[in-house]
Amino acid sequence: MQSYTQLESIFSRIYRLNHLLSLAGWDAQVNMPPKGAEARGEAMSELERYTHELLTSPVTKDLLEKAKLAPKMSPMESANLREMRRLFESESLLPEEFVQRKSKLTTKAQVVWQESREKNSFQTYLPVLKELVATAREEGKYRSSTTNMSVYEALLDVFEPGMNLKTLDAVFADVKSWLPSLLKQVVEKQEKMNEANPIVPITTPISKEKQEALGKHMMGIWQFDLEAGRLDSSAHPFTGMTKEDTRITTNYNPTDVEQSLYAVIHETGHAKYEQNCGPREMITQPICNARSLGLHESQSLFAEMQVGRSAAFSAFLTPLLKEFYGEQPSFQEENLKRIAQKVKPGFIRVHADEVSYPLHIILRYEIERALIEGTMEAEDVPKVWNAKMKEYLGLDPGDRDDLGCLQDIHWSGGAFGYFPTYTLGSMFAAQLMATIKKELGEEEVRRCIRSGELSPIFAKQKEKIWDVGCTYETEDLMIRATGEKLNPAYFREHLERRYLRGED
Amino acid sequence: MQSYTQLESIFSRIYRLNHLLSLAGWDAQVNMPPKGAEARGEAMSELERYTHELLTSPVTKDLLEKAKLAPKMSPMESANLREMRRLFESESLLPEEFVQRKSKLTTKAQVVWQESREKNSFQTYLPVLKELVATAREEGKYRSSTTNMSVYEALLDVFEPGMNLKTLDAVFADVKSWLPSLLKQVVEKQEKMNEANPIVPITTPISKEKQEALGKHMMGIWQFDLEAGRLDSSAHPFTGMTKEDTRITTNYNPTDVEQSLYAVIHETGHAKYEQNCGPREMITQPICNARSLGLHESQSLFAEMQVGRSAAFSAFLTPLLKEFYGEQPSFQEENLKRIAQKVKPGFIRVHADEVSYPLHIILRYEIERALIEGTMEAEDVPKVWNAKMKEYLGLDPGDRDDLGCLQDIHWSGGAFGYFPTYTLGSMFAAQLMATIKKELGEEEVRRCIRSGELSPIFAKQKEKIWDVGCTYETEDLMIRATGEKLNPAYFREHLERRYLRGED
Repeated sequence: MQSYTQLESIFSRIYRLNHLLSLAGWDAQVNMPPKGAEARGEAMSELERYTHELLTSPVTKDLLEKAKLAPKMSPMESANLREMRRLFESESLLPEEFVQRKSKLTTKAQVVWQESREKNSFQTYLPVLKELVATAREEGKYRSSTTNMSVYEALLDVFEPGMNLKTLDAVFADVKSWLPSLLKQVVEKQEKMNEANPIVPITTPISKEKQEALGKHMMGIWQFDLEAGRLDSSAHPFTGMTKEDTRITTNYNPTDVEQSLYAVIHETGHAKYEQNCGPREMITQPICNARSLGLHESQSLFAEMQVGRSAAFSAFLTPLLKEFYGEQPSFQEENLKRIAQKVKPGFIRVHADEVSYPLHIILRYEIERALIEGTMEAEDVPKVWNAKMKEYLGLDPGDRDDLGCLQDIHWSGGAFGYFPTYTLGSMFAAQLMATIKKELGEEEVRRCIRSGELSPIFAKQKEKIWDVGCTYETEDLMIRATGEKLNPAYFREHLERRYLRGED
Repeated sequence: MQSYTQLESIFSRIYRLNHLLSLAGWDAQVNMPPKGAEARGEAMSELERYTHELLTSPVTKDLLEKAKLAPKMSPMESANLREMRRLFESESLLPEEFVQRKSKLTTKAQVVWQESREKNSFQTYLPVLKELVATAREEGKYRSSTTNMSVYEALLDVFEPGMNLKTLDAVFADVKSWLPSLLKQVVEKQEKMNEANPIVPITTPISKEKQEALGKHMMGIWQFDLEAGRLDSSAHPFTGMTKEDTRITTNYNPTDVEQSLYAVIHETGHAKYEQNCGPREMITQPICNARSLGLHESQSLFAEMQVGRSAAFSAFLTPLLKEFYGEQPSFQEENLKRIAQKVKPGFIRVHADEVSYPLHIILRYEIERALIEGTMEAEDVPKVWNAKMKEYLGLDPGDRDDLGCLQDIHWSGGAFGYFPTYTLGSMFAAQLMATIKKELGEEEVRRCIRSGELSPIFAKQKEKIWDVGCTYETEDLMIRATGEKLNPAYFREHLERRYLRGED
């Protein structure tokens, strides 16, 4: 047991130090003036170097070996030890020289990417993309070296531990078999409806202050504790900082109140998971980390898509909008529902509705996997991207790579294998909601949402997802939570019901 | 030389890590929600433990020994090495056990102090004050053990390196010999003037946004680079963060615009010193630290008192206030000057004018020194405090210890020996201004201030104070900057001229 206790203390120290890294990252996006960036980068890598040392030290390694043999660990402790080992291995697999090389490359790549996107120049980006692909292939080799995972699988495993390509391929093949035609049907249905009875858009400008007030009210509806967190604004909405002080951001456009509102709900979904993840008395331990990025995204999409864009939520929202923003012709329940549920395929992933979204993801998954597996090279990305956009979404960016393969930051940050987690999240959110409806009763869930009294729903999320933290591995967690492993049928049913049958 | 280079690299790492500690401290005062405090404290002490290890490690000690013998160091390098050694010694003198004990005590003491002040209960505070005094005595013993300094002198030396009690006593004795009667004269003069012709107060409420806009404009007048820093608000104005990203705060009271404005000017004075301190190419090195707290305060008081409250500045400020806040009857040059130069002895140090201020300081100096030297005990503080208030400022807080000995946080933070630096700063600011007037010509200085074109004045501060950093020890710096060591005659002359003869 003693070796386990010593490990707890090492991981506790790492958690404490990561608090400061998280703060530095949050501040960089919310407050930092431009000329502070270089010093911030230096400071963060100095501390990262130290936390890396702590995590991968021979002492940690030795303690992990010894703890294996420890008798009488509780199930929680065993799970915690398993996560410790996972973090140790994930961090130890990469040679120091490689980590530094990758860090330098991605710092440079993000600057080049921003510039290339601004001037719509894939040629400017291409050399750095080649380097990024080569580096990701190298990373995949290191990461897969001690396992029987494939190179891409090993990269995916960083973000979605336990997911394998066989499962992922089966799930995505399923989605591809029905989603493009479903999307077409939904678009046609909505077009017909709009001809007869157009949506009344929200046009009166609303000040940042008013939008922020509604945002904070909405965080209250989600029972977010503003004494243990904040709402700020940043260029891209995100959830950051730490469990004891969880901070979300949104951004404000006076003529697009939907954007800031749904960003707040989405990020609050993430934040609730962060604030509540795992057993509180082990808050500094790996068992309290988010289970996976897909699970994390499932909690934000549960809030935004399953609850926030449902018909019942429009009923709840209508009087609130009138109260916070004043009367507007668009503030009618049915009209607000149609705004929240508008489906319109577009070029840009981050603006996509929940029906189109998975097609954006599958496209990226297929491309990045081919790049990593060497069946495709960086120079072919725009051509393949546009062909797949045409095939899946019926759109062709043509020579506008800024609306095509240059739109995302992920690869420039060295994140290959990240994109699939978005769609895993959508699917699990639907599966979780189906279970909660089964357990609480559909009528009760609708009543909760219509009245904004979400406690019974949160109680289910808490019991099934939040409290659990990393106690179980992902598939096990899903089975315990919903009775079965990830099953895309729930997502399909959700989309058909909401968008074809108009029942949600 | 090699050992010196290795030292540079260690101190560079410490500087980088301190960036994160500074950010965490800044955020705690500006953004942190209350329930984040405990985790923040844990995170900061975890990193402090590591920087302490880096600074006091046997490796550092050994390198400092070897570097002594290094041939051919530049004067800058020698000065840097001297400062490294000072930091090492200051941090090494205290046993680890003591540091932790003090840290726990001061964390507790600040909570007890706040509560005691709120309910005006010295009895609640007394037990913790006793502990604080005992701990400070113990610290003084450790700190004086390897020198010929007295116990209190060793504590003072942490904040004001190089200052000795002989000098300090001489300076304060000088001030005490003329300031109380000068204060009395000034008060009588202003009272007479107010009877004949009352000050028109600024009463129309001004929004936070407008006050902030003027604050930022004022930072621009001081050539503060807002791309390398920020202006925020917090309960108590302060300057924080780091050289590359220097952040100041103020606070806003709609009916007291003077408060936020002068806080901005004061903190901008601190910030300019931080941003410009020492040779830029050595930015991570101890030579770029502020020379002392007194020097730091001299730069903020130079901005606020020497420039910002001068008659010439009222001429500059009058049209600006009209521009930013709209016309008000009080926005007349002579009236604004009288507001800026109003002298009225009061109970509270932080609200004191520059004439009364040193008397608040001398009172605290005499009490804390007696406590440390054991010629007085904690239970006698209220009695002695009130007697000295009566003697120096003609005021008696009676049983209102919240307006008396409970008003300051310093002792609760373990800072004994800090107070004198405020008055050292006032005095050196006056001495520096006298020199600059001598060199640029009084008329030119007045012209600069009246027009808000402060560059020629900044050029002098830069050459004499900012660029120098810790190249010289304090007294040497003062002599190089002004031709003589600290001389309270300049401060006296400044006060008489401004407040008795009305010439500034």
